[in-house]
Order: sequence, then structure tokens, then C-alpha cells
Amino acid sequence: MFGVTILGNNSALPAFDRHPTAQVVTLNDHIFLIDCGEGTQMQIARYKIKRSKINHIFISHLHGDHYFGLIGLITSMGLLGRENDLHLYAPKKLEDIIALQLNVAATTLPFKLHFHPLIEEGIIVNHHKYQVSCFATKHRIPCWGFIIREKKVPRKIDKEKVLQFEVPTAYYENLKLGKDYETKDGTIIKNEWVTIANTPPKSYAFCADTIYDETLVDKVKEVNLLYHETTYLKDLHERAALRFHSTTVQAATIATKANVKTLLIGHFSSKYEELEAFLNEAKAVFENTALAIEGNSFRI
Amino acid sequence: MFGVTILGNNSALPAFDRHPTAQVVTLNDHIFLIDCGEGTQMQIARYKIKRSKINHIFISHLHGDHYFGLIGLITSMGLLGRENDLHLYAPKKLEDIIALQLNVAATTLPFKLHFHPLIEEGIIVNHHKYQVSCFATKHRIPCWGFIIREKKVPRKIDKEKVLQFEVPTAYYENLKLGKDYETKDGTIIKNEWVTIANTPPKSYAFCADTIYDETLVDKVKEVNLLYHETTYLKDLHERAALRFHSTTVQAATIATKANVKTLLIGHFSSKYEELEAFLNEAKAVFENTALAIEGNSFRI
Repeated sequence: MFGVTILGNNSALPAFDRHPTAQVVTLNDHIFLIDCGEGTQMQIARYKIKRSKINHIFISHLHGDHYFGLIGLITSMGLLGRENDLHLYAPKKLEDIIALQLNVAATTLPFKLHFHPLIEEGIIVNHHKYQVSCFATKHRIPCWGFIIREKKVPRKIDKEKVLQFEVPTAYYENLKLGKDYETKDGTIIKNEWVTIANTPPKSYAFCADTIYDETLVDKVKEVNLLYHETTYLKDLHERAALRFHSTTVQAATIATKANVKTLLIGHFSSKYEELEAFLNEAKAVFENTALAIEGNSFRI
Repeated sequence: MFGVTILGNNSALPAFDRHPTAQVVTLNDHIFLIDCGEGTQMQIARYKIKRSKINHIFISHLHGDHYFGLIGLITSMGLLGRENDLHLYAPKKLEDIIALQLNVAATTLPFKLHFHPLIEEGIIVNHHKYQVSCFATKHRIPCWGFIIREKKVPRKIDKEKVLQFEVPTAYYENLKLGKDYETKDGTIIKNEWVTIANTPPKSYAFCADTIYDETLVDKVKEVNLLYHETTYLKDLHERAALRFHSTTVQAATIATKANVKTLLIGHFSSKYEELEAFLNEAKAVFENTALAIEGNSFRI
């Protein structure tokens, strides 16, 4: 299972019961939180996300609608007696803000909070099942996007066939890597007889807040699901540029050029009560587009 | 009109759709916000409070459930183009937190934010129609309660009678202060002929977070409405003391000793889904008790 659930899809001002940015990415047993606007801990409760399973939090930038909910979430985790380490990846200054807020409350967290400052583009988490990397976006202040990629060995074991050909379990890891097996009497068991092709590893890119920026195309090339902000409809492209945000058509253009499978759009301005036009405008450029509606989950 | 509307009535962990502490006090055209837990700006929208009319915010202490929503509210006021000055009364360190959070976002507020650090007990706002004072409560970190008192001149003008006795309007302010009026021919118009007794000025005391503390009795003596926290039911008085919080019976005992008119209880622990027992236990000691239910307003 690899998917993303939307907890907040609105831009700076909460409106129409839409919340500031927050998303939860689930990859098998792992839960990642990306951005954490005010009220995220309430949204986590509302959508029954297992808070205790969140071990990695990624914060794109230090505009409040992307992190004002973080300190509340962290202190609540502490009040609930969390013991597992928590890893936080964010712009450097957030460490000072958290330290100050814990300090004035005389609070000591009962778990270890590892702060990983975002400094340069590249891999920030390297797990044997997945990898997370960050990339810079162009916004009014330093801002980071994130890509979560599955890691998969090339081949999967065919459970019936390995028994039939009597391949010892100790050799399975080599089989997954595509190697043939040679029995004691010198018979070659061909890899393709006992394994099956794996599905290709999948990937999710979260583009945070950004002005229209074609350098993103290479950074998110061919991901399965691309989240790109659309603060405004296409007619407001000048306002979008002025505020370092994007329009529907701009997000869809990046999706087209990057040849992604699906585009997810969000971070809607509070000036819009209805969101249908966002979908229509983006689909006119890139058909396979979905709206980041709160509470909805998207398979990657 | 003098009343309080509850925006949040829960203790530290948001639960059962109850929010952390926030209350709005309305006194004629003035709106005061007391405490501002996470999500307060959404609660303000939900209950249609006129955000632009809030000119004074009082923060009792720097535990997150009493102020984590403040920075979001302030930045939203900025995004909405607020121009009026905003006065904030809070423990000193909050000024650093706000400055740091505005700084990392490269945000300049379009209005003037006046920070008034709470340092000693006494009057903190002195308006010709009302007065706000603060008093220390006993909590794990420095914590302040607030009292908002109406100011009223002793007498009200009787509009029919002043016309009948032909008292000039320029003399009305003297009438309100209880003075008689002497006509040009020396006739004395007795004050009680042209004025009526005013209702006594009313008062609201917000006791913030506190352990059971009998020194509060004098501080909130005979207020019309007393808000006192009841984090726990009476059986957990030991836990309450350990955490510098109070129980139902303790709040009701303070209300009795202080001879207040009505007691309002809140700041319920997340361990309780149902609140009925809070009301029953408090009423057993002090009959005129009400639960601080979110969205409810209480006339003072």
C-alpha cells in the first residue's frame, strides 16, 4: 500500500472548513506527515490516522500555514506518552522555534526528537524499502519539495516454483537480484523459472509552494503522483507570480512536461468557495488530474 | 450587553471535538479574546465572531493549549488587511516567540501589535467604560487570571423627565453623577426626579489554570460570573494537585467562599467523554453552576 491522504488543502487563510496544508503518506507500515498547518492534530483525529505510527515529519517551509500545527502535534505526542524517536526534516530555524516553545512551557518531551535541517537537495532518508529526497522550489522564502520513492528488488520469488526446484531459502535474496541458482550436481536453475517480474517502484512528489518553475520538470520527472499547488485559477497568473504561487494551467503544464502519471492539485486560495473550475482548467491541459479534497486518499 | 462565548473548553489534548482554551468576552461594542489555543481562528469563524472587532487579547500562560492558535490568528488578521492596533497582554516570552515566527516567514504585519507583558497583579486596561485587571494563579509555570469589570456612572437619565423639567443636555453628565440641577430662577430640580438608579456594574473573572488556591477567594470576591477550571472530577484531587489543576468540588468551593453569582466550569481533561458528572458534582457544592460548552454564550 502506497498512498496519500489529504488533511488540509487550503492556502494561508482557513476558509469554508478547508484547512491549511497537511498530508499523510502511507507506505506499507510507514506513515509520513508532510507539512502541518494549524489544526493538523485535529484532522489526524478526524480521519483516524494512527498518530503513534508517524515517525517522520517533513516541513516544506516556514510560512505558518505549513507548520503552525506542528508544535501542538509534538506536545500532544508527548502528553500521550510517546517513546519512539521522531524525525523532523525542516528549515533550520524551526529548531529554534520548537526549542523556545518547549522551554517557556518547561516541557521535556518523553521521546527523542531528531531535527534534520534541510540544507541542500538530495536524499534525506535512506531506508531499505524507500527513500525520501528533497528539492528546492521557488517561493518567497526558502522552500522544499519532497519525493518519496519505493525501493524494490528487481524480481519477486515465485513461492511454488522455488519449492518445486528445491532452491534453499538462503539463496532467495540472490534470486530477487536476478541471479541463477546452481544445484550441487551442477544443474542451472534459471532465475526466470523461479521468480516473477516485480511491479516497478512507485514515487510521490510533493511540490510544496512554488511559482511556475520549469526547473521542477527534471526534479519530478515521471513520478507516479505529482502534487503541485494551484493557489489560483488561470486568469490570476499575474497575482500568482507576484506571490510566488501557481495557477491550474501552470501546474498541469509541469505535469505534462514531467510526464507524470497523475497530478494532484491543492493549496486553494480562500477567495474560491467552489473548486470545480480548478479541476476543469487543469484537466484541459493534463487530463489525469485530481483535486486534493480533505479526507480523500489517493493510491500512488 | 456583557457576556462570554466559549470557543474551547478542553484541557491540553484536543478530544471529542472539544478544543483547547479560548473564550470571547463581549462588552457592548468591545470584543476581548481570552486565551487562544490551537484552532481558535477556525472556532472564531465557526461561531461568527467579528474577528476585526477584537482589539485586546489576553493570554494566561505559555502552555500550548492556551496560546498555540495565537500566531495563526495574528497572521490571518494581517492577511485580511487589518489596520487597527491590536493589544496583547501575555507573559513576556511570548513576544520573542511571535517575533521569531514572523521573522522566519519574512512577515511584516500591516497593523501595530502592542505587546504588554504581564508582570504584576493590578489594572492592565483602564477604559472609561470598563477595566481589566490581572491576578496570579498557582500553576506549574507563571499563570494569570483576568477580571473584566464594567464601569458605570451611578445614575441613568430619565429621558421623559429631563424634558419635562427642561434640564439642558449640557448638564446631563452632572445628573448622571447624582447632582441636583438649579434653574435660572433658583428652583432646585432634585436629581432623583430626573434620573433613575443604574444597575450595578458587572464583572467577569477568568481563573485560567490553577491548583486549588484559597487566595483566589479575595481576588474574585463577588464577581457576577466566575470561570474556574475543573480539569478533573472530585475523585482525582490528588492527580489535580500533582498537575496544578483543580476538581469540580474545588472550583465550587472557591465560588462559594467568594460569594459569586454564577460559576462556569471548563478545561475538561481528555479522559472524560461525558461532562454531566462535572455539572452534578459542582452543583452539589454550588448550585448556580454552568458547563462551559463550546458555542454557548453566558450573559454576565
